[in-house]
Amino acid sequence: MAGKIGLNITQICLPRECTEDEIIEEVLKLNEDPRVHGVYLHLPPASLTSRVLNTLRPEKDVDGVSDLNVGRLVRGDMSQGFTPPLANAVMELLARHGEQSPIQNHGREMSGVGPLTAALRMRNVVQSSSRWAQGQQYRPWTLRSLKLQPLSPVPSDIEISRAQTPKPVDQLAQEIGLLQEETEAYGRTKAKVRLSLLDRLREQPDGKYVLVAGITPTPLGEGKSTVVIGLVQALSAHLKLNSFACLRQPSQGPTFGVKGGAAGGGYAQVIPMEEFNLHLTGDIHAITAANNLVAAAIDARMLHEATQTDKALYSRLVPSVNGVRRFSPIQIARLCRLGISEIDPRALTPQEVSSFVRLDLDPAKVTWQRVVDTNDRFLRKITVGQASTEKGHVRETQFDIAVASEIMAILALADGLGDMKTRLGRMVVGSSRSGQPITAEDLGVSGALAVLMKDAIKPTLMQTLEGSPVFVHAGPFANIAHGNSSVLADKLALKLVGEDGFVVTEAGFGADIGMEKFFNIKCRASGLRPNVVVLVATVRALKMHGGGPNVSAGSPLPREYIDENLSLVTKGCSSNLRKQIQIAHLFGVPVVVALNVFKTDTQAEIDLVCQMAKESGAADAVPCHHWARGGRGSVDLAQAVKQASSQPSHFQFLYSQETPIVEKIRMIAQKVYGADDIELSPEAQAKIDYYNQQGYGKLPICMAKTHLSLSHLPEKKGTPTGFTLPIRDIRASIGAGFIYPLVGTMSTMPGLPTRPCFYDIDLDPVTEEITGLF
Amino acid sequence: MAGKIGLNITQICLPRECTEDEIIEEVLKLNEDPRVHGVYLHLPPASLTSRVLNTLRPEKDVDGVSDLNVGRLVRGDMSQGFTPPLANAVMELLARHGEQSPIQNHGREMSGVGPLTAALRMRNVVQSSSRWAQGQQYRPWTLRSLKLQPLSPVPSDIEISRAQTPKPVDQLAQEIGLLQEETEAYGRTKAKVRLSLLDRLREQPDGKYVLVAGITPTPLGEGKSTVVIGLVQALSAHLKLNSFACLRQPSQGPTFGVKGGAAGGGYAQVIPMEEFNLHLTGDIHAITAANNLVAAAIDARMLHEATQTDKALYSRLVPSVNGVRRFSPIQIARLCRLGISEIDPRALTPQEVSSFVRLDLDPAKVTWQRVVDTNDRFLRKITVGQASTEKGHVRETQFDIAVASEIMAILALADGLGDMKTRLGRMVVGSSRSGQPITAEDLGVSGALAVLMKDAIKPTLMQTLEGSPVFVHAGPFANIAHGNSSVLADKLALKLVGEDGFVVTEAGFGADIGMEKFFNIKCRASGLRPNVVVLVATVRALKMHGGGPNVSAGSPLPREYIDENLSLVTKGCSSNLRKQIQIAHLFGVPVVVALNVFKTDTQAEIDLVCQMAKESGAADAVPCHHWARGGRGSVDLAQAVKQASSQPSHFQFLYSQETPIVEKIRMIAQKVYGADDIELSPEAQAKIDYYNQQGYGKLPICMAKTHLSLSHLPEKKGTPTGFTLPIRDIRASIGAGFIYPLVGTMSTMPGLPTRPCFYDIDLDPVTEEITGLF
Repeated sequence: MAGKIGLNITQICLPRECTEDEIIEEVLKLNEDPRVHGVYLHLPPASLTSRVLNTLRPEKDVDGVSDLNVGRLVRGDMSQGFTPPLANAVMELLARHGEQSPIQNHGREMSGVGPLTAALRMRNVVQSSSRWAQGQQYRPWTLRSLKLQPLSPVPSDIEISRAQTPKPVDQLAQEIGLLQEETEAYGRTKAKVRLSLLDRLREQPDGKYVLVAGITPTPLGEGKSTVVIGLVQALSAHLKLNSFACLRQPSQGPTFGVKGGAAGGGYAQVIPMEEFNLHLTGDIHAITAANNLVAAAIDARMLHEATQTDKALYSRLVPSVNGVRRFSPIQIARLCRLGISEIDPRALTPQEVSSFVRLDLDPAKVTWQRVVDTNDRFLRKITVGQASTEKGHVRETQFDIAVASEIMAILALADGLGDMKTRLGRMVVGSSRSGQPITAEDLGVSGALAVLMKDAIKPTLMQTLEGSPVFVHAGPFANIAHGNSSVLADKLALKLVGEDGFVVTEAGFGADIGMEKFFNIKCRASGLRPNVVVLVATVRALKMHGGGPNVSAGSPLPREYIDENLSLVTKGCSSNLRKQIQIAHLFGVPVVVALNVFKTDTQAEIDLVCQMAKESGAADAVPCHHWARGGRGSVDLAQAVKQASSQPSHFQFLYSQETPIVEKIRMIAQKVYGADDIELSPEAQAKIDYYNQQGYGKLPICMAKTHLSLSHLPEKKGTPTGFTLPIRDIRASIGAGFIYPLVGTMSTMPGLPTRPCFYDIDLDPVTEEITGLF
Repeated sequence: MAGKIGLNITQICLPRECTEDEIIEEVLKLNEDPRVHGVYLHLPPASLTSRVLNTLRPEKDVDGVSDLNVGRLVRGDMSQGFTPPLANAVMELLARHGEQSPIQNHGREMSGVGPLTAALRMRNVVQSSSRWAQGQQYRPWTLRSLKLQPLSPVPSDIEISRAQTPKPVDQLAQEIGLLQEETEAYGRTKAKVRLSLLDRLREQPDGKYVLVAGITPTPLGEGKSTVVIGLVQALSAHLKLNSFACLRQPSQGPTFGVKGGAAGGGYAQVIPMEEFNLHLTGDIHAITAANNLVAAAIDARMLHEATQTDKALYSRLVPSVNGVRRFSPIQIARLCRLGISEIDPRALTPQEVSSFVRLDLDPAKVTWQRVVDTNDRFLRKITVGQASTEKGHVRETQFDIAVASEIMAILALADGLGDMKTRLGRMVVGSSRSGQPITAEDLGVSGALAVLMKDAIKPTLMQTLEGSPVFVHAGPFANIAHGNSSVLADKLALKLVGEDGFVVTEAGFGADIGMEKFFNIKCRASGLRPNVVVLVATVRALKMHGGGPNVSAGSPLPREYIDENLSLVTKGCSSNLRKQIQIAHLFGVPVVVALNVFKTDTQAEIDLVCQMAKESGAADAVPCHHWARGGRGSVDLAQAVKQASSQPSHFQFLYSQETPIVEKIRMIAQKVYGADDIELSPEAQAKIDYYNQQGYGKLPICMAKTHLSLSHLPEKKGTPTGFTLPIRDIRASIGAGFIYPLVGTMSTMPGLPTRPCFYDIDLDPVTEEITGLF
């Protein structure tokens, strides 16, 4: 990723006997080589065939041969581009070079280079250089919006998505200033964006950084993703401001279970929604492959250690290849951690050999689980190793859903390939019988993990229904991990939108969880500072917090949620909404409340929420109608966000990383959740002692708490008080870089209901149209 | 996939108040719409801005506006393209249309359409039509080869791969006559090819169809894939014949275990080899997701049926949505199979409801397994459902490696999206307590499977080290499945190479298994007929068959394999090689023996093999040096294949599908393997009775036998005789469409050794270069 400064002009000067094909092959290599900024074609005239000339990319054409070929340059352009002062400068330069001029040295095969030709060449060098230099700079956007004509009643998500033709993704990429070599298309509507962009635009100031969080939701969800998409549609298609949405990639499992897709909804969607919801560019599949390679390595290693002597293990781990025994780099890293400086395999003492070959993993202390991107409840607890080939080494373990993998959290927090590789290597998979943490690097697998993840680290570019750019990247769990999209997608987007642009990113769950982790974990990792928090509320959730009856998926909504009820709304606003605004203010960031309007909401209810939100300290509060009307329905929100982003933000962390683990947990519990105090189980206390001893005490905290209440009790709505937060256990994701206290039991594997979504999902084999996704 | 004949010319005629953006949006939609072959722009002159004019694709430009815009058409082309007879014809046509002319009807906003303009328009209609018609036809190749300069000693595979710059895949696609809309790039070096190609080129005669099979191999493998790649490099880069390699996608698991990659080797490789060996375009990941969705559906369904009444199940499976209960199409398919014609959910009798809602799967008779693309031996036998949420419904089951999934076999045999969907739906996952087969469609999951597999069905285009095209598609197991690359890749390639071109495809294992299945299963499914079989042999394997000592992975080769030993070679040729040639002749196809030369082979050994092969009936036999020298080292083989392909081929199946199951198995055992007879276990006999009863008797047979011997005993080399083939058990892949008798135990999950390949695999985070893949 190191920056390359300067200009690299290469000459092609092949022997006379080269065939046309061989020349073209050379040209194509140079066309593709990003290190070469321009090419001279110094060839015998007979070799300068039109095929050769047409092969060289115009932007690399220093000689202007492709222009000369069609005769335009000589006849038309001399009077305009090639001014007398420039011509003089070029002549002077040429004269100064004298015999040393590369043009004269290598031009011997040509028919004679007169001053005009030489000058033309120099002009082309200058043009080529300035083209290159411009290429390194920021390019203003020329975003073309897609027209939206919302229908009423609003059709199904897949129908809306299918009715809109997305721009070709290479066109979108060009519109937002990406260079051709910075994207890798995956089909016509998705492209991965290379991280080299960060290097090219490193001097470019970032845009405004907007976080979308929510109040404590009902189990049905309150539409944060649609708010993100609607807001970006409004900012880009209606206010004509550069803006980018950064979304999490959804797990594919729930798409076929109960939840359905996650590409937004109604007229605020990422399109094509089926591409968004299925496979995408394979990142989650790569995570699954990497995660399960670690798991296979763990069990196989325990078996091999249990059935082999030190000597046998050593002769296999460090085999003689053509008579030479050598440690691999990954093995040398393990030797270093063991304090063994010897790198000649023959020179290790038997004790050193033993400590090198035996990870001595305690089967009862393996914390690494297998994963699968399917809602498969029967894998929640399993016994493995029951075939006779595994010689009785059975073990109880479990599968989690793929997005619960620590590798997903790493993908979301890494700020480059090197950082990702380091984090993958330091992942702790369990501990030895003597209590030492065992890492992925100890297993020898960390290089392979980086290889498996090399493409997953590039964010995927897609677009909204109105043609605004979207990055989809990473989707870690919001309880056992931090629940935010990736640091890298946000960073790339902030450079691309430019100083006056907006990047809107999303945090999972309610603000007490997703936003708190966004600030304390993600912003700490990235160094980025948010300008505005958009807090999403719904009348439905506010009524629930105000004392409305239970809301649950699959049951019809009680009357209170359909009819106007200002009293419930008032109580909801003065409890949960007010508290969540206060939480954002703890971090010093202005808040705009976005009321996601449902068709059953009355004007009086809407007005009441907006008024009370502002009374509670929100910089502004506006209703949004993006679901029914697209970006046009979120223009007020966009204006409010733009206004709030010009206010000063005084961002601060809730705690310093130097604060002891227990104190960090207590601060979150008291200041964010409103608990009186915390209560540690003996297991939790023992783990804290262990983590402190291992040097993990400075890691930030990632609370694994229900999102359905500010407290640990899902049924406590509003602003619960007078409770003590129980810390049942504590775990650590050392690679991702956080410690996660468990408050209650977290399910890491969803199940399938009696009638999963898949009953309605179908594909027409003739039209290739998908039905039933939502 | 139905063909579209005729020309669809669309007009854009928008209201005056349309903005430029709105017009461009319309144009872009029509640009992208494959159903529209040409576009008229009937717009007010003020709207015909250069942005609008430049947006319309030239090939869709019926008005020639983009030409008019740059002024070339009027000034330059009239005298050439627009002959007086054509002008007259156009005038006549216009006159006949009179007031009904669409041009006059919609041209009211324009400044007046004179005869010249009208004529120009018509000329452009004609041009546009003929462009379209040409687009539907075969396009001759203009393949550019990549120059290869082999080094000695031969560097590592990854070094060779990295040293060559592949052509951009869109360029390769264009060179071999693919239209832009027929490819979907996945990065710069891989592209999926759409099946619509088959429709466009349906009238185009197929090229020659060459199968590469092998003699019975040593456990080290004899290099069939490198022969395929070397042969295609020779045919295309050296003989300048259109040719295509069709390869199987390797499982990713073994890449990190013992085997390493499968992109060929030395100077006969698919590049970039790391892309070939990792993720590729996600097909195996899609198979994993689809396979495991079925598995999750099975266990969840058994749990739901076990814990709910008929009524509860019915009300959940056919819920009331806004007061209406309705069966989904997948449920109606199940009703049909049950013989229930009623489609009003309220009208079913209680008995009908019960038989509809209860699959009544017998847990002991579930045959569907979960899969993972990782070598994870601890998943060979597991117990699932041990969490308390699964209420004691534990069950023993297993994971297989992903490529062992029946869905992989279906991908390889399907001849279109519709066929794949049908096969996915009819997959049998187990049987009910009353012995009825239960299908994926009964589970309601078949539509979702087709959706998950919609992109996997498109073959992936890559290239060899010398720039020849390669399809990588599907990679079913060669024992429990048929071990061949996909029917669709072969079909696409046969159309693309054209009548005089060559498609070289590969069968797994030795010819007794892979080739027999290629003929009896794959050719039966595809209707394709092979022209030549290339039979790969090595001196090493021949010596083994001649009585040489044991060869095993990880141990040094005994001296017999390094020193010249004509006696062992002779015995090997007269046993295994001769027999495998005879097997190919059973099917009426000429054989060319390709001796894959190793550096320890002597000239006398090489000559001996070639001589004896020809004596055994091979049309030709030649040594190949592709590993060390690339295509140039396989030119002799290419010439021999070209020669043999001009011989008549009298292809015939070994058995008719009407032959009873037992007889089919016996014919394979006796005629192909050389067994005296077969011996059925009682389980096998019972299964045959069951399959006959279920109507599966006409399916072809897919033997699951060791590949290390013609017999069932891996240690029996050469041409074993005097043995009886034991059929231990019989299983069926009803979706894929074959019955597979088990001869011995087949491992469907590899393990990791003490020091897996991953110890050496690494990624440089700065250069992004991968090391350690081979």
